[in-house]
Amino acid sequence: MRGKVLLASGFHAPVAGEVDVLEDALIAVDGEGVILSVTRRGEADYDAVKARAVAEGRLERLPEGSYLLPGFVDCHVHAPQYPQLGGALDVSLEVWLQKYTFPLEARYADLAFAKRAYGLLVEDLIANGTTTTLYFATVHQDATRALVDTCLEKGQRALIGKVVMDNVESCPDYYRDASVDAALEGTRALIDYVRMHPDNAAGLVKPVVTPRFIPSCTDATLEGLGAIAGECGCHVQTHCSESDWEHGYVLSRHGMTDTESLDRFALLGRHTMLAHSNLLTASDMEKIRVREAAVAHCPLSNAYFAGAVFPLRAALEKGLHVGLGTDISGGPSASMLENCRAAVTVSRMLETGVDPAVDAATRANGQPARIDFRHAFHVATAGGAKALDLPVGQFSPGYRFDAIVIDTTAKAGSMRLWDEFDSGDGVLQKIVFTASKANIATVWVDGKTVSSR
Amino acid sequence: MRGKVLLASGFHAPVAGEVDVLEDALIAVDGEGVILSVTRRGEADYDAVKARAVAEGRLERLPEGSYLLPGFVDCHVHAPQYPQLGGALDVSLEVWLQKYTFPLEARYADLAFAKRAYGLLVEDLIANGTTTTLYFATVHQDATRALVDTCLEKGQRALIGKVVMDNVESCPDYYRDASVDAALEGTRALIDYVRMHPDNAAGLVKPVVTPRFIPSCTDATLEGLGAIAGECGCHVQTHCSESDWEHGYVLSRHGMTDTESLDRFALLGRHTMLAHSNLLTASDMEKIRVREAAVAHCPLSNAYFAGAVFPLRAALEKGLHVGLGTDISGGPSASMLENCRAAVTVSRMLETGVDPAVDAATRANGQPARIDFRHAFHVATAGGAKALDLPVGQFSPGYRFDAIVIDTTAKAGSMRLWDEFDSGDGVLQKIVFTASKANIATVWVDGKTVSSR
Ligand SMILES: [Zn+2]
Ligand SMILES: [Zn+2]
Repeated sequence: MRGKVLLASGFHAPVAGEVDVLEDALIAVDGEGVILSVTRRGEADYDAVKARAVAEGRLERLPEGSYLLPGFVDCHVHAPQYPQLGGALDVSLEVWLQKYTFPLEARYADLAFAKRAYGLLVEDLIANGTTTTLYFATVHQDATRALVDTCLEKGQRALIGKVVMDNVESCPDYYRDASVDAALEGTRALIDYVRMHPDNAAGLVKPVVTPRFIPSCTDATLEGLGAIAGECGCHVQTHCSESDWEHGYVLSRHGMTDTESLDRFALLGRHTMLAHSNLLTASDMEKIRVREAAVAHCPLSNAYFAGAVFPLRAALEKGLHVGLGTDISGGPSASMLENCRAAVTVSRMLETGVDPAVDAATRANGQPARIDFRHAFHVATAGGAKALDLPVGQFSPGYRFDAIVIDTTAKAGSMRLWDEFDSGDGVLQKIVFTASKANIATVWVDGKTVSSR
Repeated sequence: MRGKVLLASGFHAPVAGEVDVLEDALIAVDGEGVILSVTRRGEADYDAVKARAVAEGRLERLPEGSYLLPGFVDCHVHAPQYPQLGGALDVSLEVWLQKYTFPLEARYADLAFAKRAYGLLVEDLIANGTTTTLYFATVHQDATRALVDTCLEKGQRALIGKVVMDNVESCPDYYRDASVDAALEGTRALIDYVRMHPDNAAGLVKPVVTPRFIPSCTDATLEGLGAIAGECGCHVQTHCSESDWEHGYVLSRHGMTDTESLDRFALLGRHTMLAHSNLLTASDMEKIRVREAAVAHCPLSNAYFAGAVFPLRAALEKGLHVGLGTDISGGPSASMLENCRAAVTVSRMLETGVDPAVDAATRANGQPARIDFRHAFHVATAGGAKALDLPVGQFSPGYRFDAIVIDTTAKAGSMRLWDEFDSGDGVLQKIVFTASKANIATVWVDGKTVSSR
């Protein structure tokens, strides 16, 4: 692939709470998709860089009304649940799991079904502007390999784990790992498959050690997975202190919180992503910070299954790594934009409280909890990337060019900008709140076009 | 216009909490846009009705993968605020009003600007599937007339009020009615304009008596508006008990709640729409029920400006009329679908509570508060229509054919249906949670196509 120089206006947010506005910037990307330089209008060599790119026929211009953003980094997706996205949200958690979710995940024993479903999922996530996804797959080896193949084929950056669930007391007979050994061997086999994949020399896809959550795993398996994570230097993902039921279960089984228990099993490290984490104690938060682990905040899903709002602002102020997740299909949207909006909305509800029957002072939680579009955009891009320790999510030299173009003028889209009102990061605010999939015109991963209208 | 018979599958929800699934139904619409009959597959005359429509060349079929829904009824929109949709949500209410909203509304003194902005707004709302809108305009006579003209021209059913705000203590010098007389005369003049409009013989647009809210009006003006509403038999709209500040202001100025005070001014009747109403007392709710007035629930807006969630489920169980509103631009989305989703989400948060620092039992409000997609869809369509006393929002003989087509297969759209999983009202659940503007293929008002892709 030939390198290029993109002339674009847009936004990125390397620092939580701050937006860096790029106006007619020149972004040079090499043939491998690595950003070589970002030159701003007004810099001394701006005209020279531009003239050279023109002379070499390598200058590409974004059209008027189009803006460049980093691609989204979705830190929590259950790949097999995509067929029920937006469905089964009118039932209890128990029904959701036993009647819908486990039977659906069990279907991925059928490789043909898995290939079809994963093909549509990856295609749709890319079209939604998600350039990196951290995936829970299923317990199945073949289907999980098919998800790896699909991401490589369609060009999405992905971190993929074979789900581990071997506790007979909490997993259905028809859908679980047969034994501790099966769980550990399956995990190792998937790691090897990803790392030795002939199409994965550049490491676009990475393997992830994936205990579903503590209740679904035996202690022997958790211990084995911690050892594998250490040996292989892999990413780790699991669910952590999501709901009162789950948090209480771990307290009762292990006599400590999820965070403490995961730490004890060597599952809490720089490459660990903890989904949800709504009910962290102050000491859990401190432990996560010290270990440099991360939280995947899933604001929409939490309204359906957690019963509490993750205190994102407090976590960012404490210096935790936080990414944003759709939690397909516990969350009903595949759109990171829609999840950005939800992150802002629920943060305001956490700050004010919700119950009108309670007086205002008691209703409010007493802490500043609101975030705005700047924080939401950060956790959806650079924050998630940093949490995963990946060189993406921002336009800086040495980072990979994973990016999207928002066409604010798309007729099927849902945006309307006004020359006399919209400028600076106000344009990004409108993108975050009002853009939809139809506004996403182009998606690049490693500098390669993976979706375009 | 010639009548037609539409062969369509789809959904409507005449009763709160219930969805009526139409499969290959034949909907006959006359030349004026009135629904003559709805014939279901399996009914005795189904084949005859179909054969006759074919013979007369009047049968229209929805394509495979397309579903018919009633058009949305948006019960609360500030038309002049459209240019700031999705903007200015990172500031306090005071800044939002004084720095952004009032100056923006004041610009509608410029008729050319008003025509341009209103043109885009009405076009975009129609494209979003909103076939009826209840609009707050501005204090300006000419600009408000332009909004009337625009709705008639573009074919959107609309209820439109010249905003009344004459209290010098709470309204800015540069943006208010000059006097009580000016406020009342302006209201009367707009009513006359709408009723005598040469293009409005069918009553597509209706006038609305529109005190902004009690704090912005003098008592003399509220009294005068109550008299006008009585004389003219007009609709009335205002804001009611939205936030703690506003609720407290009215208690302190009038020694009673918003609802009681509006009632005293003869502004609470069968055609009254109260935006927000988050902080209603039990006796307020009862008064609203007895008066057959209605609430416009604005779930997204409330997260930003109300500080509490309207107890929708309780209101529906008590038998109140409730419609759904976007509250452009206090709410950041022009999409009724997105507001349906928000209505479900915030209802769950009201039920569980939000603050993870509080134990689960204390966090929850103790009442069942959750609604599902069925209730949300109802209030967005038939519920809002009933609240406004308009014969729309459902597919029943005698109702007007205001309807939209959801193309679940639209490439720019955000939906994915699965033959093996999706059926019955599960399809509607996926539409509510995952469709976006790009999935809306056709919009009809009074049987006339007002938008199509
Ligand atoms: Zn999950
Ligand atoms: Zn309002």
